[in-house]
Amino acid sequence: MDHPMYLNKAFILAKKANPKLVRPNPMVGALVVNSNGVILGEGYHQQAGGPHAEVFAIQHALQQTEDLSQTTLYVTLEPCSHHGKTPPCTDLIIQHKIPRVVIGSTDPNPVVAGMEVLKQHGVEVLIVLHPEIAQLNRVFTVNQLKKRPFVQIKTAMTLDGKIADRSGKSQWITNETSRYFVHEKLRSQTDAILTTAATLIADNAKLDIRLLNKPAKELSVLVIDREGVLLQPSNRQLSVFYPRAHSKIYLLTKTMSNDAVSDIPPNVELIPCAFDDNGWLKLEGLGEQLLQKGIYHLMTEAGAVLNTFLLQQQWADEWCCFVAPRLLMDQNAPSVFQTTQAISLEDTTSFTLLESLQLEGDVLLRYQI
Amino acid sequence: MDHPMYLNKAFILAKKANPKLVRPNPMVGALVVNSNGVILGEGYHQQAGGPHAEVFAIQHALQQTEDLSQTTLYVTLEPCSHHGKTPPCTDLIIQHKIPRVVIGSTDPNPVVAGMEVLKQHGVEVLIVLHPEIAQLNRVFTVNQLKKRPFVQIKTAMTLDGKIADRSGKSQWITNETSRYFVHEKLRSQTDAILTTAATLIADNAKLDIRLLNKPAKELSVLVIDREGVLLQPSNRQLSVFYPRAHSKIYLLTKTMSNDAVSDIPPNVELIPCAFDDNGWLKLEGLGEQLLQKGIYHLMTEAGAVLNTFLLQQQWADEWCCFVAPRLLMDQNAPSVFQTTQAISLEDTTSFTLLESLQLEGDVLLRYQI
Repeated sequence: MDHPMYLNKAFILAKKANPKLVRPNPMVGALVVNSNGVILGEGYHQQAGGPHAEVFAIQHALQQTEDLSQTTLYVTLEPCSHHGKTPPCTDLIIQHKIPRVVIGSTDPNPVVAGMEVLKQHGVEVLIVLHPEIAQLNRVFTVNQLKKRPFVQIKTAMTLDGKIADRSGKSQWITNETSRYFVHEKLRSQTDAILTTAATLIADNAKLDIRLLNKPAKELSVLVIDREGVLLQPSNRQLSVFYPRAHSKIYLLTKTMSNDAVSDIPPNVELIPCAFDDNGWLKLEGLGEQLLQKGIYHLMTEAGAVLNTFLLQQQWADEWCCFVAPRLLMDQNAPSVFQTTQAISLEDTTSFTLLESLQLEGDVLLRYQI
Repeated sequence: MDHPMYLNKAFILAKKANPKLVRPNPMVGALVVNSNGVILGEGYHQQAGGPHAEVFAIQHALQQTEDLSQTTLYVTLEPCSHHGKTPPCTDLIIQHKIPRVVIGSTDPNPVVAGMEVLKQHGVEVLIVLHPEIAQLNRVFTVNQLKKRPFVQIKTAMTLDGKIADRSGKSQWITNETSRYFVHEKLRSQTDAILTTAATLIADNAKLDIRLLNKPAKELSVLVIDREGVLLQPSNRQLSVFYPRAHSKIYLLTKTMSNDAVSDIPPNVELIPCAFDDNGWLKLEGLGEQLLQKGIYHLMTEAGAVLNTFLLQQQWADEWCCFVAPRLLMDQNAPSVFQTTQAISLEDTTSFTLLESLQLEGDVLLRYQI
C-alpha cells in the first residue's frame, strides 16, 4: 500500500474545509481503503461541532460494504478518544473492526490523542509524518500547546526593513496587489486583528475586510489600550468604530471592565489586563481568555514596538513580510523589529522560510517563527 | 510570419554565448527565414573580435540557397553599420538583397546603429521589442550609454536590512547555498569586484572564484584605497594578494601611480584618482578608464557606505540582494544602505523586481535600479 499517496489524498480532502468554520478544531481528512487499494469512503471535518472526518469516511465506506475488517483508515490527524461534542472516533474504529490506521500527524493534546487506545484494542497504528499536514494545523497546535491564539505578524516594509519614514508616514509602502492580498488572504482568515491604540489613532484604519465587488465584511479588533484612550469622546470618530453587527472591538485596558465605565460604545468590550511597571502588557492568562472568546487566530497590524514585544515574549508564530522594491535609507526611520540592545550575529533570531510569492513588484516572504 | 516566435528563437541562440567572451560586445542571435517560414540559417555572436550573429546566419543560409531575396533576417539587436573589427553587417544584408529585417532591440550607440542605412537601401525594417532581449544586453547598454562598467551591487542581509552586527561581524549572514551561488553565478560572470581597503582588511576575503571540485579561479579586484594602505607591509599578508597569473588588483589611490611608488607587489596596478574634500572618490572619467582596462561588468562586495555612495552617484544598475531568514533587531547595527538624512516616504528610491529565487531558507531578490 502506498501510504504517502493515500495520506496525500486525505490531506487534499482536509484542505476543503473553511478554516474559520472548523476552529477551534483542526482540519482533518480521512479515507477508508480496502485491501486492493480501492477507496471505499472519504470525508473531512467540515465545521466545529459537526462529525469528524473519520465518521464521514466510515459512513461512506459502510454504504459500499458492511465489512470493514480488511480495510485501512488513513487520517491526517491521530483520531480522538474523548467525548466532546461528538463521540470518540476510536470507538467507531474499534466497533467496525478496522484493523489498521495510518496517521499523518499526532494530536498535540494528550487528553484527546487516541493512538494508545487503538493499540490497546489491537489496531495496528502507523505514523507517516507529513510536514505539510503539520503546517495545515499550525493554528490548532498552537492553541492546544500554548493555550493562546496563533499569532501571525504582518508587516509591510522597504528593502532596508523600514516600516515608515521618520515622520511616521507608512501609507503606502507596498503596492495595491499586496494590500488586496492582505484583505483577501490574510484578514479573511484571521479571527481578529491585534494592534495598539497609538497605531489606530495614527493610521485611522478601519481594519475590516474589503474585497472587490463585495460589501465590506466586519472583523474583530483587539487593541492594546492601557489607559482606555479609545473611549475618549475625541476618538469616537475613528474609522474602526463603524457599525458592527457580529464583531467586536476588544480593548485590553488597565483594570477596567465594562461595568466600571459608563458610556461604552456598542460592541466594545473591555478586557481588564495587568501591565508591568514599564507599561508592558502582561500576557499571562490572556491567551486562554482570548480562546474562550473564539479568537484562535490573531493577526497583528502594528508597529515595531508591538512586533518586537510579541517576538520577545514568544507570542509570535508566523511572519508575513511584504517587501516593497524600494529603499528608505534613513537610519532614523523605524525598522520592522527594533531594540536598542547590542545583539551579536550569533544571537540573531532565525526563522524557517515557508513561502515566497511575487506580488507585482512586491514580494511576500512568509516565515515560521 | 510569427515575428515574436522567430525573435525568441534568435534570443535563445544569443544566450548560447559566454558573456565574458563576448564583452565588450552585446550578445546577439540571428536567423534567416524563407517566405515559407523555414529557417535557412542561424548564428550567434560567439566572441569579441569574431563574426557577428548576422554573418553566421547569412553564411549558413547561403549553404542552402544563393538567393536570399525572399527571406527575412531576424536579429535580436539592430545590425551594425560601421567598420569595427569586422565589416558592417548592413553591407552584407544589402549585398545579399535581404528585403526585410526584424529586430528585437535597437542599438544604444548611434554611430553603430544600422537601421537608417538599411531603410535608405530599401530594406524593410520592423522593430518588435522584447524586454528580455533588452535585459540580456544590459551590460552592453550601460557601457555604451553611460561610458562606465555595469555595476551590480551584491549584498547579504538580515530581514531587517542589517549587513553586520554592531561589532562589524558579517560572516556569515547567509547560508552556504547562497554563498556558493555568489561564486557560481555572480563572481563567475563579473570582470572585477569593487570593494574598499577597509572592507578588505576587515574581512580578509580572497575574492576569487571557488567552485566544487575545481581549482580556484582568479578574479580582478578594484579597491578604493585613497591613501594606498594596502601597500603597507603589514597588509601584504592579506588573502587578496594570492599569486595572480592573469588578473590584477587595481588600487584607486590619491594621485599615485606605479611609477611614483617603489616596491609594488606584482599584478598590482595603481589608478590615480581624485577625491573630494570629504574623501569621496570622484567618478568623472573613471568609467572610461575602467572600460579601457576591460572591466565592463563590476560587482560590489562592500559595506553600506560604498553601496549608498554608488546608488547616490547613479553608479548602480542592478542589486542582487540575498535575504537571510533572521533578524538582527539592533538599531545600531549597520544597514544595507544608510544615510543620516531625513528621507520621506515619497522620496524613497524605487527598483524593478527582476527575479526572486529561493536558496534553501534564503531568498535572492534581484532588482533593476
